[in-house]
Amino acid sequence: MKAEVYFTWGEVNEALVDKRTVVVMDVIRATTVIVEALANGARGIFPTESTDEAARLASSLGREETLLCGERRGLKPEGFDLGNSPAEFTPEVVEGKQLIMSTTNGTRALLAAEDASRVLVGAFLNLSAVAEAVGGEENLVLLCAGKDQHFALEDALCAGALLMMLTREREDLTLNDAARVALDLARKYPITADTLRSTSAGEALTELGLERDLELCASVDRHAVVPEMKERRVYLPNPRKRSQGSGRRTP
Amino acid sequence: MKAEVYFTWGEVNEALVDKRTVVVMDVIRATTVIVEALANGARGIFPTESTDEAARLASSLGREETLLCGERRGLKPEGFDLGNSPAEFTPEVVEGKQLIMSTTNGTRALLAAEDASRVLVGAFLNLSAVAEAVGGEENLVLLCAGKDQHFALEDALCAGALLMMLTREREDLTLNDAARVALDLARKYPITADTLRSTSAGEALTELGLERDLELCASVDRHAVVPEMKERRVYLPNPRKRSQGSGRRTP
Repeated sequence: MKAEVYFTWGEVNEALVDKRTVVVMDVIRATTVIVEALANGARGIFPTESTDEAARLASSLGREETLLCGERRGLKPEGFDLGNSPAEFTPEVVEGKQLIMSTTNGTRALLAAEDASRVLVGAFLNLSAVAEAVGGEENLVLLCAGKDQHFALEDALCAGALLMMLTREREDLTLNDAARVALDLARKYPITADTLRSTSAGEALTELGLERDLELCASVDRHAVVPEMKERRVYLPNPRKRSQGSGRRTP
Repeated sequence: MKAEVYFTWGEVNEALVDKRTVVVMDVIRATTVIVEALANGARGIFPTESTDEAARLASSLGREETLLCGERRGLKPEGFDLGNSPAEFTPEVVEGKQLIMSTTNGTRALLAAEDASRVLVGAFLNLSAVAEAVGGEENLVLLCAGKDQHFALEDALCAGALLMMLTREREDLTLNDAARVALDLARKYPITADTLRSTSAGEALTELGLERDLELCASVDRHAVVPEMKERRVYLPNPRKRSQGSGRRTP
């Protein structure tokens, strides 16, 4: 398996993702939110590039079954229903709803990957499920969202943790420099809220008083779901799987 | 000291380098070549964005005292005097000459940093000299050229090695995520030709039959010079220093 990591969404273009499976990761917090929301019963999530586009899409889809969510500078934009804290996306709030999402880095990373043959959404929350889903791939791209076009440790760590799982299954991994470093990082840093708190994104969140989000962001394998994006909509191709991993939804 | 590392030149903009000292690093091979050439007596080096611009500048400066150097896909462009192998830049070849340089990543990184208050050129070749030169700074940016807009291990390692030297002198380093990771890498990987050979850039060079360049690229503190860029010209502000570190030029 050839596995390439890219540390920022701005680095990828159509040629790099063409005919490949891409896993998009934005641990703090967009892909964590997506996994949590879909595991908790949201029907689908539309990533959008701007808050304006999000508002327009909400109007055209109808406001009854849609929720506007996301952040600018970490906080809920004016007029939005939800911010970007994963704990907001409970079954009570999101079940059966379509979510329209606009965030600074994560949704842009998803859209940067849209020309791939398959776009999956990864976070610490669904690490094992993603590893299982991509274990048979020959050409894998792990796309870290990064922070404002720069390297973000937590996303690199998530990519590395996924690669660590893959190395247990396969001995034929060919890595680019970034993948090699991501693996080094996963061997060095434990996946904990403390580790996340020490990153630039974690510090910024702590300053906003949203430090509690980090506990959830660091919850490895909280859900056994693998969200996929098709035609700019993220959903669970096999929603039955939802109940396997989500404690909340298992009676 | 606040020390920020950026892994690719595409990430930086005027605001990020404004009023800061920036050290540009492209270990394989542009900044290695610059240090080697200036230490061996070149009068100055003009980084250019394209081979066309390089050829035009050579015409306007006069071809007698100038040498065109650089690479495209690792090899010397047609009509150029020199390629991008540091061993080509001997005193016999470069002494008293102005060099016009065009490379894929390194010269672009230099130009990306041009709005900084001070732009220095770093490589393993002049690591201690650069560390000494920036030891008193309060706001330092280490700009890795990267490879084709992506992360390159050897440049991150060079940034980390410089930070490791700075941590010995100062206890007040504030690092961004990338700087933290660069430091991790410098603690893990020895600075050797073998390490460089294992990187994507090192592999590409080896495939071109230019593997021998890596020995020179990994020569720590071969020269005690700190090239500086002003108005798009890289030179040694204090050329007397040249002889201190360059064995070749000491009688």
